[in-house]
Amino acid sequence: MEISARNTFKGTVKKVVPGSVNSEVTLEVAPGVEMTAIITKSSAERLGLAEGKEAYAVVKATDVMVATD
Amino acid sequence: MEISARNTFKGTVKKVVPGSVNSEVTLEVAPGVEMTAIITKSSAERLGLAEGKEAYAVVKATDVMVATD
Amino acid sequence: MEISARNTFKGTVKKVVPGSVNSEVTLEVAPGVEMTAIITKSSAERLGLAEGKEAYAVVKATDVMVATD
Amino acid sequence: MEISARNTFKGTVKKVVPGSVNSEVTLEVAPGVEMTAIITKSSAERLGLAEGKEAYAVVKATDVMVATD
Amino acid sequence: MEISARNTFKGTVKKVVPGSVNSEVTLEVAPGVEMTAIITKSSAERLGLAEGKEAYAVVKATDVMVATD
Amino acid sequence: MEISARNTFKGTVKKVVPGSVNSEVTLEVAPGVEMTAIITKSSAERLGLAEGKEAYAVVKATDVMVATD
Repeated sequence: MEISARNTFKGTVKKVVPGSVNSEVTLEVAPGVEMTAIITKSSAERLGLAEGKEAYAVVKATDVMVATD
Repeated sequence: MEISARNTFKGTVKKVVPGSVNSEVTLEVAPGVEMTAIITKSSAERLGLAEGKEAYAVVKATDVMVATD
Repeated sequence: MEISARNTFKGTVKKVVPGSVNSEVTLEVAPGVEMTAIITKSSAERLGLAEGKEAYAVVKATDVMVATD
Repeated sequence: MEISARNTFKGTVKKVVPGSVNSEVTLEVAPGVEMTAIITKSSAERLGLAEGKEAYAVVKATDVMVATD
Repeated sequence: MEISARNTFKGTVKKVVPGSVNSEVTLEVAPGVEMTAIITKSSAERLGLAEGKEAYAVVKATDVMVATD
Repeated sequence: MEISARNTFKGTVKKVVPGSVNSEVTLEVAPGVEMTAIITKSSAERLGLAEGKEAYAVVKATDVMVATD
């Protein structure tokens, strides 16, 4: 499946913190570059996310902000 | 200013494509790792975004999805 | 690719309206049930979206609101 | 009240799963077509959402992604 | 219609800037407090948005970030 | 840090409700004008959010909807 979201980063699951409805998932997408996602707990289970698993971080371009010092 | 968005990546502007209301901005946030943002044209101008400028990509954790093969 | 977004609807492209940076895409996901997406123009081209093509509408659960009369 | 969000689907509440801050709400918006929303627990209570109640799923066009096989 | 989005502000349209697919709408929601929305051009036309018209700014709680100095 | 999000409102924290993964934060951004944010629990702790603290509500223009009666 190819998706319109412009940002797809291949990485590895570093941590999964389950909550009541949501779970917090941390992916390493490049050496020292980590990305944190909040997804529903059932999605984390459906995708079988666990430490060490290969996964992608997917972000729509309209959800990326830009900041400057 | 510190922000609640969990994902902040320091990078360099590679490209800015202005539209009528929005502009498409591409940042390199790690060697070979690019991120595309769609922000309003006036924000791109306000921040003075141009090729080579240092900037951050900022993404909320709830806006990051996870996918698996 | 399987994605954490909870809502995936198989449908058919009814219309594509290209803009300067974004394009408006309308999908029929069930008899008489249409969904409108705004995606980047380059994504619409990358996915080869055109009237009659089979495609999926994908929506994160946190992006769905609920309303009542 | 009329809202700028382009996607409004009339449906029926199938399930409400309350969490600590958020609740997961499933709506049937067409025969066999279900949509899952994550809204705040207090909003679910304010709207009186319960199985069988008539409600609308509301999604902004910029929050709909498109995917292809 | 009552909606799950937690933030609804009654205000007045100050400015509408139409683009090819999207339009930029500025609302004054309290004395000196302005809010900018990017909505689809067709939604701005459907709602008849023009300077001086009464309208609401609606924002989901998950779309509000918090920052500190 | 300056950010592309078009809506930044200076205010005061009125309430913080922690959940398992997320926390609900209410800010007063103008006399009688309150804004509710759902951010991750760890972000609320990182920013030291507590009643009375000065903070900003930050919202992207694409996340603001407009409604009319």
